[in-house]
Amino acid sequence: MNSQERLTLDRPQVVVNEVGPRDGLQSQSRILSIEERVALIDSLLAAGVRDIEAGAFVSPKAVPAMAGTAAVLEQIDLGAARFSVLVPNVYGYELARDAGAECVAMVAYATERMATENAKMSREQALKATETMLAKSEVDGLKVIVTIAVAFECPFEGVVEHDIVVRTCDRLFNAGASLVVLADTIGAANPATVEALLERLLGQFDSAHVACHFHDTRALALANVYAALNCGIRRFDASIAGLGGCPFAPGAKGNVATEDIVMMLQAMGFETGINLRKLIDASDFAEEATGSARGGRSKSWLKPHLLKHTAS
Amino acid sequence: MNSQERLTLDRPQVVVNEVGPRDGLQSQSRILSIEERVALIDSLLAAGVRDIEAGAFVSPKAVPAMAGTAAVLEQIDLGAARFSVLVPNVYGYELARDAGAECVAMVAYATERMATENAKMSREQALKATETMLAKSEVDGLKVIVTIAVAFECPFEGVVEHDIVVRTCDRLFNAGASLVVLADTIGAANPATVEALLERLLGQFDSAHVACHFHDTRALALANVYAALNCGIRRFDASIAGLGGCPFAPGAKGNVATEDIVMMLQAMGFETGINLRKLIDASDFAEEATGSARGGRSKSWLKPHLLKHTAS
Repeated sequence: MNSQERLTLDRPQVVVNEVGPRDGLQSQSRILSIEERVALIDSLLAAGVRDIEAGAFVSPKAVPAMAGTAAVLEQIDLGAARFSVLVPNVYGYELARDAGAECVAMVAYATERMATENAKMSREQALKATETMLAKSEVDGLKVIVTIAVAFECPFEGVVEHDIVVRTCDRLFNAGASLVVLADTIGAANPATVEALLERLLGQFDSAHVACHFHDTRALALANVYAALNCGIRRFDASIAGLGGCPFAPGAKGNVATEDIVMMLQAMGFETGINLRKLIDASDFAEEATGSARGGRSKSWLKPHLLKHTAS
Repeated sequence: MNSQERLTLDRPQVVVNEVGPRDGLQSQSRILSIEERVALIDSLLAAGVRDIEAGAFVSPKAVPAMAGTAAVLEQIDLGAARFSVLVPNVYGYELARDAGAECVAMVAYATERMATENAKMSREQALKATETMLAKSEVDGLKVIVTIAVAFECPFEGVVEHDIVVRTCDRLFNAGASLVVLADTIGAANPATVEALLERLLGQFDSAHVACHFHDTRALALANVYAALNCGIRRFDASIAGLGGCPFAPGAKGNVATEDIVMMLQAMGFETGINLRKLIDASDFAEEATGSARGGRSKSWLKPHLLKHTAS
């Protein structure tokens, strides 16, 4: 712990888990080289980001943007942050473990149709497969993060019942998940629905083991983050430069931009450990490398403001 | 009251006060004709907007976009909504009254420097002038809305003390103001500062007489609206297509867009009486007529979504 970290320990901490190098990049039309993916991660590390989803061990045919994740892991300093990698099945899990991953990310589904569309399995089959991987990870000593996709609303089945999310959390925690992430996959949540689900969920589970993942499709991501903060959530996924998107929603925006959420958290007095000025460098890099990322919604204000602030 | 209005009375009501035709238009480079200004107001009326700041009785030399506000009032149906007009001084007040305005809007300042820059007076002089107009309006039977500019943060003096806002509110209510609007003129508030000021203020004043006016400079407007809703605020200014801006902040965005706030409020279960589909028509018109408005942040999602919804 350096002196700056010590100084800020009295401010409430919020973890911002960067998912741009995985969730973000996999939906961009331009496929980054291994070197570019490593450079993106390095720029995030330089900004003080300490929780990063670095890639995925998925079929390179299905998701070409994630091909070579083992090579990415080889080239980054694995001790510099808490890295996770996405694994869709036991085969991917074993590749991740063998590549030195200490934390794996998995996906569960709140609706049948989303499970079928995304994983070609029923909801229950997908959950069972995740439980199998959780058992393996316990033996191997790996941490597991499980994201519940469409936890609020499904593009096919509409609004999701809270009971389904509660029961899914219960199964996942019982099977050994370290953390469950509630994903608003299509950006359909609003502050009222966020509060309603979290009030129900956090009556039963410890907020330290629950995180939120918001998409900014309807410009509600920051309002939703604030609603979740009010409920006690202290960990959020975010994607540098707002990388990401959803194939199901026309005009959909990506994940909440890391620069937006960090700016809001810092303004509100939370400590993230992240240097906003350097985070903008990472955001610029993401915009340049992908050619499609648009930058966070606050970036047009944030960038000149930070430059002025640094210069004066 | 029509049957639709009766049906929705059980949902909590929120008033969205449209300030695009005044606060919005006055900062656009293109000056709209009287006919265009009337057409903009008519499009808002058609969408069900019932609280509208229609113009300003200010020096046409200083603010050419607001020249001819009397002619605008002549051409709109004054009985169709609760219209207000901005008046900066007694001369403007008398013009507004003589033009048939039933509600006038005035500005008070939370900081010295903002008063000097905007009104060429000290804070106290500006407040005294407002008190004089409030006394006149009581005699004339006009309602008065007073906006406290830079109620959260001033571009010149920084963060504003809560005490100043509380004392200003006290003076304004004592002088007969119907409503005080807390304006985050440069879009520097965040959910935590909104909550802090409102908790202080609403311990002393009735929330029915307090409204909020947020700018979306840092993409925090909807989060701030939600924070204010949580504190009990039920009236917000908004500007169609996000019209507006602030000359003091580089990269500044305008007021929170009416379509964004109405979308969020409706999603959260609040009733605004506004038809979102028709509101998008008004937003399109504002974009076309000004050539500079960018539309609300949610519009790229909202517009195709509403069209699909209407077609199916």
